[in-house]
Amino acid sequence: MSGLHAGAPSMVQRAMDAIIGHIRANALRVGDTLPGEGWFAGSLGVSRAVMREAFRSLATLKVIDVANGRRARVGAMDGSVIATSLDHAMMTAQITVPQVWDVRRTIEVRTAALAAASRTSAEASGILELAQAMSSQLDDLPAMTVHDIAFHAAIARACHNPLFLQIVSSFAPLMEVAVPAAWRTRAAAADRAAMVDRHRAVALAIYRQDPPAAAAAMESHFDTAVGALLEATVRPAAA
Amino acid sequence: MSGLHAGAPSMVQRAMDAIIGHIRANALRVGDTLPGEGWFAGSLGVSRAVMREAFRSLATLKVIDVANGRRARVGAMDGSVIATSLDHAMMTAQITVPQVWDVRRTIEVRTAALAAASRTSAEASGILELAQAMSSQLDDLPAMTVHDIAFHAAIARACHNPLFLQIVSSFAPLMEVAVPAAWRTRAAAADRAAMVDRHRAVALAIYRQDPPAAAAAMESHFDTAVGALLEATVRPAAA
Repeated sequence: MSGLHAGAPSMVQRAMDAIIGHIRANALRVGDTLPGEGWFAGSLGVSRAVMREAFRSLATLKVIDVANGRRARVGAMDGSVIATSLDHAMMTAQITVPQVWDVRRTIEVRTAALAAASRTSAEASGILELAQAMSSQLDDLPAMTVHDIAFHAAIARACHNPLFLQIVSSFAPLMEVAVPAAWRTRAAAADRAAMVDRHRAVALAIYRQDPPAAAAAMESHFDTAVGALLEATVRPAAA
Repeated sequence: MSGLHAGAPSMVQRAMDAIIGHIRANALRVGDTLPGEGWFAGSLGVSRAVMREAFRSLATLKVIDVANGRRARVGAMDGSVIATSLDHAMMTAQITVPQVWDVRRTIEVRTAALAAASRTSAEASGILELAQAMSSQLDDLPAMTVHDIAFHAAIARACHNPLFLQIVSSFAPLMEVAVPAAWRTRAAAADRAAMVDRHRAVALAIYRQDPPAAAAAMESHFDTAVGALLEATVRPAAA
């Protein structure tokens, strides 16, 4: 934490550490309530203004959750924090689209393999249905984008590792821009159908509980998708 | 953003979006200065209190950087935001140690392969030196932990994809706890030497510019390391 703080940064940081320490020491879980600002202010010997700022910063980081006027509660992990970082880094040209796509590919080849090993029957059907939804709406770009994002999220959910799910979810804002851009390069119906086939190949491998096939299908999906993306020249707003 | 805000949450969110929109529209880069709170307040027609809170939230997310009293500047991507999320999720039992280790393994098998393809000579030597430093300080747990974290960060840096580097950096706080725990299970000198050998195998494959060997060596490193970790029962503070 630096600057802009009512108290000295180190005091706000100390106050944040105390709140985090309280969560840890009491083994609190998501949704558990925290003592109020006054309680922490008293026990730490800092002003309420410092405590208020520490609470706000932790709410911004989703470590705590504070609905209007309610008592602060322990927050649930939320990919939106990573998404904000990622989006900012791309838009200020600190990272490029191909670099993000390499990270996505690395993560999602693994989520596909894990999903093939761990998915429930309902999850396997859901993933197949999303691939099917894509093939029936080949010309509806907004619908296609929604299904594409949901498809990748469903696979991440089926891998049953919530950290993978949060990371994959954090890519969604980028996909909202990149998927339509890549899709526009696939003007020919044949190209679009081929793309949908690659999604279906991933879904089928997960359905058949075949991790190596799921990983290979996801890899081939990314190899073609990245090619299209680079042609689409979706880049950070450098112009 | 929710609650705890001076203004209605949606107003603060709108103010944050306006700042981010300004960065984007002007193609600002890291270190570029932003207009002051007053300028944004005037152009959006919101109070300075709302703008001040928007600036603070973006500073917490490292989207902007505000040293004491200075003008706000565009912030550099910073793994500490992801690290805070990760640490919180582990400590509140939203994710388990093996789940984090699966993500690390997935990411770092890739950074090892990329580093083997992209490292400079200086980077290759630096990675070898860190592996060497580990083998010469087998019994100094704090020094070993520092070298181990630096070793993984050096590989991520040598892969020349800053997003991988930030993700790997975000694991450092967890490693500060987990590395000594895993290391304590390797009481026998032979076990410790074997562990150091696996680090050296990764370093040598990167030095020889052999991506498949680097990936395989990193994989084998993680397979053994995770085994030791599970024995060490480093888990979220569930007790």
